[in-house]
Amino acid sequence: MLEVLKKQVCDANLELVKRGVVIYTWGNVSGIDREKGLMVIKPSGIDYDGMKPEDMVVVDLISGEKVEGEWKPSSDTQTHLELYRAFPEIGGITHTHSINAVAFAQAGRDIPALGTTHADYFFGSIPCTRELTEQEVKEAYELNTGRVITECIRERRIDPLAVPGVVVKNHGPFSWGKDAAASVYHAVVMETVAEMGIKTMFLNPEANIAQYILDKHYMRKHGPNAYYGQSDE
Amino acid sequence: MLEVLKKQVCDANLELVKRGVVIYTWGNVSGIDREKGLMVIKPSGIDYDGMKPEDMVVVDLISGEKVEGEWKPSSDTQTHLELYRAFPEIGGITHTHSINAVAFAQAGRDIPALGTTHADYFFGSIPCTRELTEQEVKEAYELNTGRVITECIRERRIDPLAVPGVVVKNHGPFSWGKDAAASVYHAVVMETVAEMGIKTMFLNPEANIAQYILDKHYMRKHGPNAYYGQSDE
Amino acid sequence: MLEVLKKQVCDANLELVKRGVVIYTWGNVSGIDREKGLMVIKPSGIDYDGMKPEDMVVVDLISGEKVEGEWKPSSDTQTHLELYRAFPEIGGITHTHSINAVAFAQAGRDIPALGTTHADYFFGSIPCTRELTEQEVKEAYELNTGRVITECIRERRIDPLAVPGVVVKNHGPFSWGKDAAASVYHAVVMETVAEMGIKTMFLNPEANIAQYILDKHYMRKHGPNAYYGQSDE
Amino acid sequence: MLEVLKKQVCDANLELVKRGVVIYTWGNVSGIDREKGLMVIKPSGIDYDGMKPEDMVVVDLISGEKVEGEWKPSSDTQTHLELYRAFPEIGGITHTHSINAVAFAQAGRDIPALGTTHADYFFGSIPCTRELTEQEVKEAYELNTGRVITECIRERRIDPLAVPGVVVKNHGPFSWGKDAAASVYHAVVMETVAEMGIKTMFLNPEANIAQYILDKHYMRKHGPNAYYGQSDE
Repeated sequence: MLEVLKKQVCDANLELVKRGVVIYTWGNVSGIDREKGLMVIKPSGIDYDGMKPEDMVVVDLISGEKVEGEWKPSSDTQTHLELYRAFPEIGGITHTHSINAVAFAQAGRDIPALGTTHADYFFGSIPCTRELTEQEVKEAYELNTGRVITECIRERRIDPLAVPGVVVKNHGPFSWGKDAAASVYHAVVMETVAEMGIKTMFLNPEANIAQYILDKHYMRKHGPNAYYGQSDE
Repeated sequence: MLEVLKKQVCDANLELVKRGVVIYTWGNVSGIDREKGLMVIKPSGIDYDGMKPEDMVVVDLISGEKVEGEWKPSSDTQTHLELYRAFPEIGGITHTHSINAVAFAQAGRDIPALGTTHADYFFGSIPCTRELTEQEVKEAYELNTGRVITECIRERRIDPLAVPGVVVKNHGPFSWGKDAAASVYHAVVMETVAEMGIKTMFLNPEANIAQYILDKHYMRKHGPNAYYGQSDE
Repeated sequence: MLEVLKKQVCDANLELVKRGVVIYTWGNVSGIDREKGLMVIKPSGIDYDGMKPEDMVVVDLISGEKVEGEWKPSSDTQTHLELYRAFPEIGGITHTHSINAVAFAQAGRDIPALGTTHADYFFGSIPCTRELTEQEVKEAYELNTGRVITECIRERRIDPLAVPGVVVKNHGPFSWGKDAAASVYHAVVMETVAEMGIKTMFLNPEANIAQYILDKHYMRKHGPNAYYGQSDE
Repeated sequence: MLEVLKKQVCDANLELVKRGVVIYTWGNVSGIDREKGLMVIKPSGIDYDGMKPEDMVVVDLISGEKVEGEWKPSSDTQTHLELYRAFPEIGGITHTHSINAVAFAQAGRDIPALGTTHADYFFGSIPCTRELTEQEVKEAYELNTGRVITECIRERRIDPLAVPGVVVKNHGPFSWGKDAAASVYHAVVMETVAEMGIKTMFLNPEANIAQYILDKHYMRKHGPNAYYGQSDE
């Protein structure tokens, strides 16, 4: 079942390695079939080397139970499911431990919007969530990781497709998009703008950007009058 | 038409990837045929992987209209055209979002001339332009990006072939040269000296260089008595 | 003799190069056969390029004498032996000069636990040892390097499998694990979290993490109720 | 003539690219035949891609005149010759613009000895030379670059084989050794310890190392009782 989606999710996981944002098994990508209510996700702790579409695991969106697959699903499965439940407009999710985005997560700071590279994909700062409480960690760690992400997006009144990612405090980046490939793309953008941000802040701790430039760049690619790329994209 | 120029421009775009100064579709190179008044530029939002000379787009220098090509030209087309109009001595232009040069752009700082690596190709600081005004952004963003660059070069009384590039505030590097390949070369130099500059400033915030060393290095490669490289170059 | 262990140790040494944590001959991995009381280690100063299992050297755990092998064992042999004697639960050891971990060693600072990347493999800070005294250096440098490591682990009351590595002051990282491959894995993790740590401290010099998150992540992978990875791992 | 030396020098130049310490034509390696009083050096401004031993240029040590070769010798030829004249014990020289070593050159700071990675190859700080005077630059720039290097080594009472390299202020690293390959090796070590040094100084601006550790590591590899590597090396 879901052969096409399994291939998309497997390819997206392998793209993480190719783009240099994961080593070993440190990342996972999922995709969802909204009609069937089923998520496809990377198996837990399996090497990327030689990973095949049929290794992907199918999980039920509502129950969280495994529906198909030889392996256990990623240990972050409950986080992914919680995000799919809260954001019906997203189709793929990526989690990595990419170095520069993790640095912001560990520092407990938002990745600020300082330039057009950022503004082309993220409409404003990439938020850093609050820390989980001790009780949240003990009771349902992965599920509550999803919840602090959705709480953060909701409290800041963010459209999850306009700011398709966060860093979870002391943990690392989660990103999403219309499908698995888009979520990986946003993970790579986030890592890149995080590195740019660290270097910018060294050169100028007061660096910032005018809101009208953020508006322009985001709208150039995403608004109803978008004119970047080919018209049939 | 312009088969040779299309190949040069396509090769120069692919060189950006090979040199590590762009990922995805984040960059563009153009070249110009001054006699015909036609610019050849990368299409908008097209992957570098598999890009061919016939994918390049031909645009009229004066009207800015597409003359030939299957695809829409790069969204930065009007910026390129404005630079070609203002600097009749240049033959190629490159735009990237390379990380260290972008850090200077986002910090709103010139890339200072601190050593001979820089002085071999850029005769003095690489300027950071002013920010575009809200009106400039709203009326004609890409065209006005070109205009803040030419304004910056003119106000600082710079010879555009002696300082073949700038960083646009909150955006990133634009470079140029006698042809498309030279503009890419300057983009790579700019990224490299930007990284050297950040590390130098960490080690010594007061670092600088004597003007007579800048003079010597630039003249060694570019003056009438240049003696670097082979005489028939 | 010990053909399987020689292959494991040779493969682990080659993995160091592939993972980018050593250049030239700057690193060494060993493994031990506890029943026979024999250690297998990389030869001294031999290129990784073309290294074969039969180049590995066999050394007696107690006497420290070479038992088999064409080459001299690594100059760090006495350090490895001392660690195997003090920590009976470990089966492999890795030493590198990886850049970010060395920076902590040279700075004389622990690599702090600031996030879950670290907590998944190291249960608390990765300690920096004290400096060797002049007498320790003169009398038995490599042996005493092993002794300051074991002294450091003992004085901080650390379980060597819970914190499988240290940085030796002014020198660099040593890591260990259940076998040679695990010790390399920990060397790569240490280098990665060291780079994350430097960038985190730039962004927030006061960065830290709650103990209950460290507990959770370590136990998720290593405790009796571990649920990361496949159950038969 | 000098076919063996030409191959060694060509291989050493290509090694610079492979080790990531040069891009484009930004570096040069030479070697010398002391009996014949002839230096072999890379041609000026020629691409590494496809470079062959027969492209190397032969120059007379005393007169500085080209003796054989199709191309002009490297523009840094007079610097190399001056070093060979002043240091009769060296057999090869390398110049690069590697990023971290250049940062120290631009900052006008020595690369401090902070750890054993450094101490294994450089017995103390790697000095930064003084700036050339305006007259020195105008009269004989490359020759005087060699002279500030030899002046620096002499004034600090350094054995050039014990500290096989310097950074020239506002310029970059020059290194040397018993042959061309050794000079490249030292260029790579210098770049590596420069990067380690920058990160160490960020973590601890007061970082330092005891002299007895420097002594031990240098003597372990280079003294009469050296015991690193295989005895027949």
